[in-house]
Amino acid sequence: MHGWAKDLFPICRSLTGDGVRETLSYLARLIPSLTVHEVPSGTQVFDWTVPDEWNIRGAYIEDEYGNRLVDFARNNLHVVGYSTPVDEWMTLAELQPHLHSLPEQPGAIPYVTSYYVRRWGFCLPHAQRESMAEGRYHVVIDSTLEPGSLTYGEVLIPGREKKEIFLSTYICHPSMANNELSGPVVTTALARWIESLDRRYSYRIVFVPETIGAIVYIDRHLEELRTNVVAGYVVTCVGDDRAYSLLRSRSGNTLADRAAKLVLRRHAPDHVEYSYLDRGSDERQYCSPGVDLPVASIMRTRYNSYPEYHTSLDDLSLVTPSGLEGGFDALRKTISLIEANATYRATTPCEPQLGKRGLYPTLSTRGAGYAVRAMTNLLAYCDGTRDLVDVAEFIGINAEEAIETSQKLAAAGLLTTVDA
Amino acid sequence: MHGWAKDLFPICRSLTGDGVRETLSYLARLIPSLTVHEVPSGTQVFDWTVPDEWNIRGAYIEDEYGNRLVDFARNNLHVVGYSTPVDEWMTLAELQPHLHSLPEQPGAIPYVTSYYVRRWGFCLPHAQRESMAEGRYHVVIDSTLEPGSLTYGEVLIPGREKKEIFLSTYICHPSMANNELSGPVVTTALARWIESLDRRYSYRIVFVPETIGAIVYIDRHLEELRTNVVAGYVVTCVGDDRAYSLLRSRSGNTLADRAAKLVLRRHAPDHVEYSYLDRGSDERQYCSPGVDLPVASIMRTRYNSYPEYHTSLDDLSLVTPSGLEGGFDALRKTISLIEANATYRATTPCEPQLGKRGLYPTLSTRGAGYAVRAMTNLLAYCDGTRDLVDVAEFIGINAEEAIETSQKLAAAGLLTTVDA
Amino acid sequence: MHGWAKDLFPICRSLTGDGVRETLSYLARLIPSLTVHEVPSGTQVFDWTVPDEWNIRGAYIEDEYGNRLVDFARNNLHVVGYSTPVDEWMTLAELQPHLHSLPEQPGAIPYVTSYYVRRWGFCLPHAQRESMAEGRYHVVIDSTLEPGSLTYGEVLIPGREKKEIFLSTYICHPSMANNELSGPVVTTALARWIESLDRRYSYRIVFVPETIGAIVYIDRHLEELRTNVVAGYVVTCVGDDRAYSLLRSRSGNTLADRAAKLVLRRHAPDHVEYSYLDRGSDERQYCSPGVDLPVASIMRTRYNSYPEYHTSLDDLSLVTPSGLEGGFDALRKTISLIEANATYRATTPCEPQLGKRGLYPTLSTRGAGYAVRAMTNLLAYCDGTRDLVDVAEFIGINAEEAIETSQKLAAAGLLTTVDA
Repeated sequence: MHGWAKDLFPICRSLTGDGVRETLSYLARLIPSLTVHEVPSGTQVFDWTVPDEWNIRGAYIEDEYGNRLVDFARNNLHVVGYSTPVDEWMTLAELQPHLHSLPEQPGAIPYVTSYYVRRWGFCLPHAQRESMAEGRYHVVIDSTLEPGSLTYGEVLIPGREKKEIFLSTYICHPSMANNELSGPVVTTALARWIESLDRRYSYRIVFVPETIGAIVYIDRHLEELRTNVVAGYVVTCVGDDRAYSLLRSRSGNTLADRAAKLVLRRHAPDHVEYSYLDRGSDERQYCSPGVDLPVASIMRTRYNSYPEYHTSLDDLSLVTPSGLEGGFDALRKTISLIEANATYRATTPCEPQLGKRGLYPTLSTRGAGYAVRAMTNLLAYCDGTRDLVDVAEFIGINAEEAIETSQKLAAAGLLTTVDA
Repeated sequence: MHGWAKDLFPICRSLTGDGVRETLSYLARLIPSLTVHEVPSGTQVFDWTVPDEWNIRGAYIEDEYGNRLVDFARNNLHVVGYSTPVDEWMTLAELQPHLHSLPEQPGAIPYVTSYYVRRWGFCLPHAQRESMAEGRYHVVIDSTLEPGSLTYGEVLIPGREKKEIFLSTYICHPSMANNELSGPVVTTALARWIESLDRRYSYRIVFVPETIGAIVYIDRHLEELRTNVVAGYVVTCVGDDRAYSLLRSRSGNTLADRAAKLVLRRHAPDHVEYSYLDRGSDERQYCSPGVDLPVASIMRTRYNSYPEYHTSLDDLSLVTPSGLEGGFDALRKTISLIEANATYRATTPCEPQLGKRGLYPTLSTRGAGYAVRAMTNLLAYCDGTRDLVDVAEFIGINAEEAIETSQKLAAAGLLTTVDA
Repeated sequence: MHGWAKDLFPICRSLTGDGVRETLSYLARLIPSLTVHEVPSGTQVFDWTVPDEWNIRGAYIEDEYGNRLVDFARNNLHVVGYSTPVDEWMTLAELQPHLHSLPEQPGAIPYVTSYYVRRWGFCLPHAQRESMAEGRYHVVIDSTLEPGSLTYGEVLIPGREKKEIFLSTYICHPSMANNELSGPVVTTALARWIESLDRRYSYRIVFVPETIGAIVYIDRHLEELRTNVVAGYVVTCVGDDRAYSLLRSRSGNTLADRAAKLVLRRHAPDHVEYSYLDRGSDERQYCSPGVDLPVASIMRTRYNSYPEYHTSLDDLSLVTPSGLEGGFDALRKTISLIEANATYRATTPCEPQLGKRGLYPTLSTRGAGYAVRAMTNLLAYCDGTRDLVDVAEFIGINAEEAIETSQKLAAAGLLTTVDA
């Protein structure tokens, strides 16, 4: 995954444009079933309009001596996303309103966009900005912002059931690693693992530009999503090595939330839990009133809560192979739990005789019963009213134990599933 | 308000009698729409009977030398409420069973009544009682207790809707300021403010003798009250400057409770919260099984929890202009919140595009979204299932922000009300 | 009760056999209405089969010099329950796999059984086992394990209603006192007290071998139990003097749980509360999905949580007369509360006039109302939606106050029962 991220890092992605297409075309080589969709500028999607397409070939600020102080070729964060073209000489005072920097992080280039109001601008380290002398500067942005289309990718993987698990990640940020490249590369690895899986659920996996891309996708697929999705996750910020986070869905208690919580309790006992009030990515759309999908977000360190966020410091030293592996594992385990989840009912009144099935010690000594508590507790609480995830949570076993024990008891004919 | 209280302070109010009529007639000059009602003694109201009417012209205890030790003319608390007439000479030993004082507050005259058993008695400072010499005393109470009527006042202010907000205060205590005059004067100020308001709700405001008056009023208006009242407050102890209190309704979670809580969280973050188990005024009737109105009580320092309560020390030095103003403001803000309350639903799936309406920054920098959280959170949680008060509480905004933000979003067509 | 326990202590009880019959025949002399039932070996009960009947006449281990190191005649715990007959000479090494001892309690004989797999074995103090010399031993168990029957006792005590309170205790352990003899002797005392009671409820009281006996009983009476039982308790470990415990039913909030909690809050404020996850006796069957009776367990020190549990140290020095008395009292009070429990509704809107009934002070002084809070709170919260136990819990009065106050108010016509 880290290798894929390295390949994708230099590409200048934005809401639209060739950077998005290049990224999707790279991912399509890893997931042959990925299909690419184009949505024309001007298309109405709910309250929004798909914006013009933006492409950029180069940009720089030169001083009077021909020194390129700032160059898009060196770091694509230098240009405000969606900047209109410019080619002018101006004084430092005239240039200042177009410059963006972070006084509190003087070495970092900030990430700034202006998607819906036409502007141009440059982002640079505050230290460099402070060192710029009075004088005239040659400011060039070689960009185009004109009707075209918005591009997204979609992977549909059928399962035994029509009901779906939904994954959404975004592909609209230039060179930043935890937010965002960790998202598409972990999602790609998950798609490849899911294709290899003996699947109960169908899977819908989308690579969309954030916000407008999610809104476009919902606009086109609202009924399917509402009918089929049993749980979904926004995959973002899953690459650093510092923390694990769960951001809950709007209602806070969907299967997506409950399954993630059960997994993280064991996988990362000290994970940070955020409510939907702390949301910041496409769950804003997926969980909105009128859409209301059961979508949460499992992350490593959440956007907006690490110092490198939305700056040039969010790079591939921050995102590590083990960081990505950890994010992948948390999602993989959660998906496995949802695949195994069911509402079970014990098949016989009273406790079954586990001993005759070799599931219980035949010699009764003090404490003998305690060795098989996972089994007897599952039998005691599977009464057709709560699903496996809830029962496991209640009786205090982890996701792996829940899967293994429920399958053992179902195989012995002691548990049966009921329609939820 | 403090001026009105000063005017009303000397009047000897009781459960019935001319003191109540005089008080209502003073208030009717401030609220011309106030109507006065008389209910004959002997009228059956649920489990109760309206008692005889009590009037008193004077009362004193004189010693053998003609010294008036205790004189109703000096403080009307000196006479036990509803005392039967007496004109006798008796020894101190004979007098003692008729005297009431507070050893733990030797300077205070206690407030004592005997509405339903015929008695007479005097109240006096314990220090004075202790200093009374052996000897004979001339004891005179010039009172009448005979069939008459119980008197209460009612103000009905129509609004655009038939549904009502209900305010109840009492007018049956002699010269005491926080409990009770703060109640009628703040209620009078609220009635005048409400008449000036562009009102959605109708208002029913009553000035009744405590307990029996509330029971009489419920007996006459039970169906209307049950059909129309959306929220109500008992207005009492709203005049001192020491604390704010919320006494919850019986169920504890009516609109009256929730709106008051949201307002007090900001208006008086350190307010004291009491459950209905701590009740002590007419909410005892309004919330009783079989009546069950959504009635809470917003107070400054609650009855029974300040040392001057039910003594001559509860006077107009304890109740201050700013104390009354604070009580008035808390109730005014709560009423304003209820007027603005509605169950809203977002009008479009997905987040609306706030930027094109000038409601969102057009330049996206780190943290830009957080500046408009009140708006986006309101949009996220207004899904037709919870009213504005509940959503505001959940997303952590105060009453003013809730009113202002919801009205801005409704004006922009982004929120619409649903029938609750 | 302690005397009965002494009489019953030496009898060798097991899942089946003459020890059970002898125990029931002793109890039948104390409760003449006790009936004894026999269920043939091989009978199918849900997932289980009634096992063969076990009887034992004697057992010992002798060394080569004729010394009886271990003798069933001295303590019936020396033989593994359900041991098959044996009469052999063997080396210590051959004998070892048949020996059971507790290294951590070297002076105690452990209690071990093997009901469903045929084995034989001896239990002895670890210190003694360690001292056994190499050499040959004569091992004799004079037992029979062959088709016969399982025996249980049942007491049915009719009340004014068909609805039942259910008590279950077990009679399958050899010489141990807290677990188990405290159970049958306290249950016997309760049965005798209940027969003397002016009863609303009918009572079903069973003395069964643990697990298989409860399963047999449920198999024969499932519909009656499900239809009639309003609350039940497993009576076990009610004889020591160290603690009180409440083990909740599976749902945790049945009448059995709530009534026991209200009683223990006052009877034993420092009682230990266990959830159903800590269960260990026949509530495992009574609460299982498909049976689902409202059955909890009130105990002194719970099984499995005291050091003497399931060893020869659990004897009649651990179980005391006052320990048994305390266990009996907690159950008696709880049964009394359930007998008095009802869903009440106040008969009149507004507060009734307590004063005219002599239930309220006629002289109103500061705090007068607080003296009668139990009454006014009961009237305020009895609105037909919650039963007396819940109201008492909510308003903070104990079981005795709840019973007495509700009966006083009902007698005054102020409360009436509603169908729950």
